[in-house]
Amino acid sequence: MKLKVAIQGIQGSFHHQVAHQYFGSSISLNECSSFNEVVKSLKSNTSDKAVMALENSIAGSILPNYALIDNNNLHIIGEFLLDIHMNLMVLPGQNIYDIKEVHSHPIALLQCANFFNEYPHIKLVESSDTAITAQRIQEQQLKGIGALASPVAASIYSLEIIASGVHTIKSNKTRFVILKSTNKEISKELITKASIKFELDDTSGALATVLNVLNNCKLNLTKIQSMPVIETPFKYAFFVDLVFEKYKHFEKAKSLLEIMTTHFKVLGEYKNAKL
Amino acid sequence: MKLKVAIQGIQGSFHHQVAHQYFGSSISLNECSSFNEVVKSLKSNTSDKAVMALENSIAGSILPNYALIDNNNLHIIGEFLLDIHMNLMVLPGQNIYDIKEVHSHPIALLQCANFFNEYPHIKLVESSDTAITAQRIQEQQLKGIGALASPVAASIYSLEIIASGVHTIKSNKTRFVILKSTNKEISKELITKASIKFELDDTSGALATVLNVLNNCKLNLTKIQSMPVIETPFKYAFFVDLVFEKYKHFEKAKSLLEIMTTHFKVLGEYKNAKL
Repeated sequence: MKLKVAIQGIQGSFHHQVAHQYFGSSISLNECSSFNEVVKSLKSNTSDKAVMALENSIAGSILPNYALIDNNNLHIIGEFLLDIHMNLMVLPGQNIYDIKEVHSHPIALLQCANFFNEYPHIKLVESSDTAITAQRIQEQQLKGIGALASPVAASIYSLEIIASGVHTIKSNKTRFVILKSTNKEISKELITKASIKFELDDTSGALATVLNVLNNCKLNLTKIQSMPVIETPFKYAFFVDLVFEKYKHFEKAKSLLEIMTTHFKVLGEYKNAKL
Repeated sequence: MKLKVAIQGIQGSFHHQVAHQYFGSSISLNECSSFNEVVKSLKSNTSDKAVMALENSIAGSILPNYALIDNNNLHIIGEFLLDIHMNLMVLPGQNIYDIKEVHSHPIALLQCANFFNEYPHIKLVESSDTAITAQRIQEQQLKGIGALASPVAASIYSLEIIASGVHTIKSNKTRFVILKSTNKEISKELITKASIKFELDDTSGALATVLNVLNNCKLNLTKIQSMPVIETPFKYAFFVDLVFEKYKHFEKAKSLLEIMTTHFKVLGEYKNAKL
């Protein structure tokens, strides 16, 4: 039986690309219209696993997805770094001066901002997805409108790429995580990264103390972000990613953080994807 | 001459509401199709000031907007906290069982997730904006489709609110900042908050040291988030918001951070909006 993998978006999306690169091509893809639908698909066991973007080079963390993982008690069991290549695609037979509007996801538009500065006649319009715009251009035969998406999307939706690699920065990585609704036991020797959450009162001193402990335990911080605790003014939650060489170092930090912080939670323990 | 204020979105959007509450009703509104257009409007002097959402109770920071402020050297000159009330609106004469799809901004959908769990027949579809969906329902006379937006949007686009206050948490605040392309001199006595950015190598120890300094200077942290520095692995930028009682405490911290960190930058010094 094929592994059922939920993604946000449709065929040709970057989530689709990650699902294939991580799990291979022999999977059953569940296309979801939103990240919320991805979560529902996991929790109802319609899908075994899910792929979810968590951060990219331009915009940093995609914070609503942290809230979804946390609130639904999902488990991060792996991560994948995808080099995103953005291409401008249109119905065949047009050139860039025929294009009046380019529709894409806000992050994709940001990633290509420098390219479009040279074409001020093109209006940038935010849409909900990269591949969906490519699909709509084909289905509705929209002339004068371009999509920013992957080469796979151009191929699936029969569009012509009129400018390739239009993203501004060369190393345009997006970090995706692999999610499960139940914890997967992975061998402790393989674990080199963890995503944790904890709460603190709003003194910079309390956070400094926690960071000193992490440092003393030989854990290195690869991400930190605070979120106000809902309906509790002056209380903050922190999402932190840590990398380490030995799992026992993380185990030591866990027992300390359980005492020093409130609502301490491990969102996932997994193998670090190399940069 | 009226003050020209750029917002992302159209009339009836939450940005529109903030512009009016902050500047009064006698302003000239520049409706922009993306946050990138908002920035262009400021930089070309088409607008004097801009309103930009930066964080909300559910999703935390809206990080792409931090990148826009930073990359374009805009100045935060004020902040505004808006209590967001979400309402489900449709073409008149329909009830909730007539509605097959609700389109809204991903964050708005998240904010109302609990409400829709009780109506599993409704498919949630991500769109780029709250008010734009309301406008489209009216213009295209879309039956069976609902929008989540403000009461003002329902009034402007002649839709009927069939469920009000459908957001899950009662205190659903979004933090907006007021932006200018040049720094506005505001009296030092009025400044009680600052947004700063700095870079550090990836040791939790380096960040702990910085936080200790902030704590010793009597500055309180209200937000921290890391962003990987583009194309520089293992180098991190941190965006930090600080509140303080005396400007001289912040001045002391500034001179220390200029020495202890790299690429230290003040994104704005302004008056703290009370919770």
